[in-house]
Amino acid sequence: MKRTHNNGDLRLSNVNEHVDLIGWVSKKRNFGQLVFIDLRDRSGICQLVFDETMKESLKEVRNEYLLNVSGTVMKRQSSNPDLKTGEIEVKVESFEIINSAKTTPIIIADDTDALEDTRLQYRYLDLRRPIMQQKLIMRHQITRSMRDYLDNHGFIEIETPMLGKSTPEGARDYLVPSRVHPGSFYALPQSPQLYKQLLMISGFERYYQFARCFRDEDLRADRQTDFTQVDIETSFLTQDEIIDFTEEMLVKLMKDVKNIEVKRPFLRLTYKEAMNRFGSDKPDNRFGMELQELTDVFKNSSFQVFKKCIESNGYIKGIVVNDFAHISRKEIDKWTNLAKKNGAKGLVTLKAQNHTLTGSASKFLSEDEIQALYDTCKLKENDVLFIVSDTWNKTCNALGALRNGIASELGLKKKNEFSYLWVVDFPMFDWSEEEQRWVACHHPFTQPKEEDIPLLDTDQGSVRSNAYDIILNGYELGGGSLRIYDNKLQTKIFELLGLSDEDIQTKFGFFVDAFQYGTPPHGGLAFGLDRVAMILSESDSIRDVIAFPKNANAKCPMSKAPTPVDNKQLKELHIEIVD
Amino acid sequence: MKRTHNNGDLRLSNVNEHVDLIGWVSKKRNFGQLVFIDLRDRSGICQLVFDETMKESLKEVRNEYLLNVSGTVMKRQSSNPDLKTGEIEVKVESFEIINSAKTTPIIIADDTDALEDTRLQYRYLDLRRPIMQQKLIMRHQITRSMRDYLDNHGFIEIETPMLGKSTPEGARDYLVPSRVHPGSFYALPQSPQLYKQLLMISGFERYYQFARCFRDEDLRADRQTDFTQVDIETSFLTQDEIIDFTEEMLVKLMKDVKNIEVKRPFLRLTYKEAMNRFGSDKPDNRFGMELQELTDVFKNSSFQVFKKCIESNGYIKGIVVNDFAHISRKEIDKWTNLAKKNGAKGLVTLKAQNHTLTGSASKFLSEDEIQALYDTCKLKENDVLFIVSDTWNKTCNALGALRNGIASELGLKKKNEFSYLWVVDFPMFDWSEEEQRWVACHHPFTQPKEEDIPLLDTDQGSVRSNAYDIILNGYELGGGSLRIYDNKLQTKIFELLGLSDEDIQTKFGFFVDAFQYGTPPHGGLAFGLDRVAMILSESDSIRDVIAFPKNANAKCPMSKAPTPVDNKQLKELHIEIVD
Repeated sequence: MKRTHNNGDLRLSNVNEHVDLIGWVSKKRNFGQLVFIDLRDRSGICQLVFDETMKESLKEVRNEYLLNVSGTVMKRQSSNPDLKTGEIEVKVESFEIINSAKTTPIIIADDTDALEDTRLQYRYLDLRRPIMQQKLIMRHQITRSMRDYLDNHGFIEIETPMLGKSTPEGARDYLVPSRVHPGSFYALPQSPQLYKQLLMISGFERYYQFARCFRDEDLRADRQTDFTQVDIETSFLTQDEIIDFTEEMLVKLMKDVKNIEVKRPFLRLTYKEAMNRFGSDKPDNRFGMELQELTDVFKNSSFQVFKKCIESNGYIKGIVVNDFAHISRKEIDKWTNLAKKNGAKGLVTLKAQNHTLTGSASKFLSEDEIQALYDTCKLKENDVLFIVSDTWNKTCNALGALRNGIASELGLKKKNEFSYLWVVDFPMFDWSEEEQRWVACHHPFTQPKEEDIPLLDTDQGSVRSNAYDIILNGYELGGGSLRIYDNKLQTKIFELLGLSDEDIQTKFGFFVDAFQYGTPPHGGLAFGLDRVAMILSESDSIRDVIAFPKNANAKCPMSKAPTPVDNKQLKELHIEIVD
Repeated sequence: MKRTHNNGDLRLSNVNEHVDLIGWVSKKRNFGQLVFIDLRDRSGICQLVFDETMKESLKEVRNEYLLNVSGTVMKRQSSNPDLKTGEIEVKVESFEIINSAKTTPIIIADDTDALEDTRLQYRYLDLRRPIMQQKLIMRHQITRSMRDYLDNHGFIEIETPMLGKSTPEGARDYLVPSRVHPGSFYALPQSPQLYKQLLMISGFERYYQFARCFRDEDLRADRQTDFTQVDIETSFLTQDEIIDFTEEMLVKLMKDVKNIEVKRPFLRLTYKEAMNRFGSDKPDNRFGMELQELTDVFKNSSFQVFKKCIESNGYIKGIVVNDFAHISRKEIDKWTNLAKKNGAKGLVTLKAQNHTLTGSASKFLSEDEIQALYDTCKLKENDVLFIVSDTWNKTCNALGALRNGIASELGLKKKNEFSYLWVVDFPMFDWSEEEQRWVACHHPFTQPKEEDIPLLDTDQGSVRSNAYDIILNGYELGGGSLRIYDNKLQTKIFELLGLSDEDIQTKFGFFVDAFQYGTPPHGGLAFGLDRVAMILSESDSIRDVIAFPKNANAKCPMSKAPTPVDNKQLKELHIEIVD
């Protein structure tokens, strides 16, 4: 085998050079006495021309045959602007077939109409499609850019255990039966959280890890059995300092990978603002349609729904969709259902037409209220105003979901636009109706905001934490927090969460012990690498940026994993299968 | 908290500067009215001086308290050459206790006499010892150097599945029960071998991965439940080209991490040479004591042992240990036992004294034989000659083990000397006495040497493969091979290994299918990262270069993993425990 150039690198400047190329036959066609072949390697495609003397020996060559060719670079008669190499072609003087190929079950081209399970079954061929290669190459560029930043800023990558201890908190663990310790199990890590905090106690100061994490939950479009987390922890830094270096890293990432200059500082919203303006704690601000606060407008409303809401200290909010008045009754039903699915009891739909508002609820509106809505919402002819009234949480959530749904339908989510923002000041606790107790929003080691510590005794629901999420295009890329490093405060939080001393010892045992030996103030965050790669490569699914993903049924259609195993294996592990 | 400098970075050039430091109290001592504290952070230690006004407020401060201090850098009266910062000290003007510490169960210092299980139980404190931090930092430098090289040579890191299919070949799998597919199991990967070959079929051309791999085998000093493999695969390269870039990468590694210039090309031994000269397929050539070929010397021996050996086409070999004649009968017994443990039936020990040879077997030696031994082995007064006679394999192995054992005892294995070499031309097949069939030495996809292909039909035991191991200081750092890419040859190898079509389909199913679609010639190798880190950091155990290792009983003394789990968890996984 001889190779002087990559196929995709040849340009007009190479004309008259003798080249040796290797690649797969992407397309073959006869044209008069000539034969043309598009030869593909990782770098791209180059057009080959064979004259009539070779026609016979090319007969057996079909798509996906692997060739080694020798020839001269020539300027093309008519260039192909779609190809990087479109201005040249290689006149082949000799060639050799390195390997043959059966007809592939899927077509090796960027566009495919193959079913996903077929693509996954023949993943090795699916990954031969240039667009898939580019996605995995971009994933590598992303990790390289981030590693570069971290390496150059004093961070040390440290690998943490894959075979850890099962903890009853959090998501469901994947378990691994122990052969040596009958009846005992390892758990695959859900995240290196405890270990990275221990590394701070060890004094490493700046840690990172591209860590595989596992959660045995039912899969969705953006979920897999396991995922890769860019896990970061630091000592002695403030929240602002952590946000600061993270932004620097992401700005570099966007420059390195997408050649886009992102401006700093990123927008920073408190959790309250995010919910009030976007109805989401992971707002997508590539488009407007922000939530409008309308409670005051309706303070004297005679509309029973609004009246009752206000009486029970609820909130009335709306969103305006421009030029949307053409929607049908059926479409209104669709959006109403979406709002209901997201917690609203109903959706008021008003169309701005002829300087008034139409819609089934319009008859309950006074002239003043209509005018106030026009003013507050800056309504224009043919706008649609959607209104939800309920508790603050439900109102925000339902309108946020509606905003997202409509934006998707209207094509407002441009894949090649990238909008980063932070959401900060998350509440420390959520009230669990089910368990009738406070639960930690982030995790029980999250530090409450200094100024809210007095509220721990009086108004737990209002305590905010030093937790922060980084959002890109409406996806939570990652999040983190400062951690408690004071034993007394930690004990107080555990008490508020209703944990007894015994609970603490069982659930967090050695971890709590470790905090007694000069624990440094520390904090960090973690990114979902798969999501970053999905968004930056403008893909629809994280499966497109994972080489060999599982399908939605947690199965690999290629290897067929998971599979039954030998009884001998089970016996060694001291387990048996039960129905 | 305020911090202007790292403790270990202060030098004479900083004198008179005002600095803010953070760190743990490593040592505290009173000296007259003054108090001295060694303050430690990741970068090193800096000496602090507190005057009498602070003595009272320092009373509660003990080892491992975390302090934030403010002061001025001064030249020391008497410098401490053991510390990088030994020429300066910081006169403290004010300080704050960030956190307190209980007395630590192990002393935080480079030297420790704590039991390993204690160290592992309090690993977060064990890792606070500067020497342990340096080891993990070096591990990071190693991965960084290798990644750098690979990234700059067109390699792409691609993550392969952690939840794969269990295969009956090879070592024992760690299994993960599936909740979604009752009775089915995933297996944790023993290596990404199949996946990396599939990625070549996909056309990625150059792949690498720092991959966690799992083998459920009984643990030894250099084994863990899981290990990290630097996994590499390439398309279109020859064995020489693969060896070439690997050497380049390792030379860069030694320069980056150890500042040592390693000369290329590395020594390259065939398997036969390695065995003949060093009695090992992973020879340590930091020292001599090479094996001497003595079969010819004894071709007319009257010594029954040698005579029988020669009659049955065996080999007689020896090693010479200089100035070793002082060894006692008891020591001779020890070495004899070592040789026996490694397959020898016995060990002939001869001392070179007064121009003759003494020892229990000496009476069977003729004058000519003694002279020939002196000549062949270049014996000097007080040398000891150890001789083994057996099959080639057993003779080589036993003497190789002896050579290693004696070199260790004599301190010839210098930890700060690094000797790389390649072993190539491994045999393709081993004869399994147990199964009475040929088994693959490397794996069944390894390519036989072109010129040996005719021997596949006539003399399987002599077929050599395109497989190569990279050795450092007697450790197999890694190994690899060119892979078969021709379907017909692959089928022939499978037949020789006694695999039926059904076996092939069950064991390698989708993998063999994949080879029909224009598979490129490919090959690669894999390094054990833990071993590389252990050797370069001059550690005795791989546990010293793993942040949170398991003990020899596959348990983590800190988290106590593996542990029993809830019945609810087992029920969800459709398994139960049996005795």
